[in-house]
Amino acid sequence: MSPRQFATADEAEMAFYEALEQGDVEAVMAVWATDEELVCIHPGGPRIEGYDAIRESWRHILGPGNRLSIRLSDIQRFEGMLYAVHVVCEWAADPANPRQNPPVFCTNAFLLTDRGWRMVLHHASPAPRLAIGVDAEPREVRGLLH
Amino acid sequence: MSPRQFATADEAEMAFYEALEQGDVEAVMAVWATDEELVCIHPGGPRIEGYDAIRESWRHILGPGNRLSIRLSDIQRFEGMLYAVHVVCEWAADPANPRQNPPVFCTNAFLLTDRGWRMVLHHASPAPRLAIGVDAEPREVRGLLH
Repeated sequence: MSPRQFATADEAEMAFYEALEQGDVEAVMAVWATDEELVCIHPGGPRIEGYDAIRESWRHILGPGNRLSIRLSDIQRFEGMLYAVHVVCEWAADPANPRQNPPVFCTNAFLLTDRGWRMVLHHASPAPRLAIGVDAEPREVRGLLH
Repeated sequence: MSPRQFATADEAEMAFYEALEQGDVEAVMAVWATDEELVCIHPGGPRIEGYDAIRESWRHILGPGNRLSIRLSDIQRFEGMLYAVHVVCEWAADPANPRQNPPVFCTNAFLLTDRGWRMVLHHASPAPRLAIGVDAEPREVRGLLH
C-alpha cells in the first residue's frame, strides 16, 4: 500500500498526533519525510537525527500498552509555499490515569515534498503548567486541526 | 537610523547571538519581525507572544552585568524561499565563570519580510549535557555562521 499523502501541513500534523494516540510507530513514521535531513528532540532528551534513529526513539516511547490521549492548544502557524512551522502546546494524558500530565511545547516543521507534506522537525520540551499563554485550556485535536 | 536589513537567515541569526553576547536588548529586538505573529520560549519558561512581551523577557534575561559568551554547534538548516528554520545547540558561558553551562537546544525560525530576514520564533529548551549529537564540541558563532 502506498503511504498516505498529506495535502496540507495540518493534515500531516493531525495524522502525526492520531498515530501517537494509537501508539502506531509505522503511522508516526509515515508522516516524516524520507529523503531529507530530520531532527527530533523529545522532552528533556537528546537531539536525534535521521529516519532510523527517530523511528527507534518512537518505538521506545510508544511501547506496548503506552496509549495516550493527546490534546493541542495555542497553535501558531508560520506557513509558506513549501515550509510550514507550527508551534503547539501538547497535553498528553494516560486514559487509564485521568491525572493530566504537564503540557509540552512543540515546534513541528513540515516540508512540501513530491510525496505531499511531511514532517522534518519535532522539537518538544517541558512547559511550565502555568502561564502557557492566553488559551490554556486543552482542546480536541480533531476540533483544532479540521 | 534605519534598522539593519539582513540578506539571509544566517545573517539574522548571527546578529541575534552577537546581540545576546553584548547584552543589547535593542539589537536583539532588531532581529525580530515587527508586523508578524511571534513566539519566544526561553528554557523551561512560558510561551511568550508578541513583540513587546518578548522584548520585556529579553530585558529581564539580559539585565545589567549579565554578559555571556555564546557558541553554537550542530546547526541544521531547513530553508525555503521565504522561510528558514534553524535547529542549533547553543552553549552559553559567563566569561567571569569559566564553568560551561549545560547546552540549550534552539529552534529559530525566520521569515523574509519587506525589511529583510527577521526572526519569528525562538524555541529554546534545556539539553542533556551528553548525547547531543555527533558534533558535540562547541565552536565559534562567527566561524559557523560566516
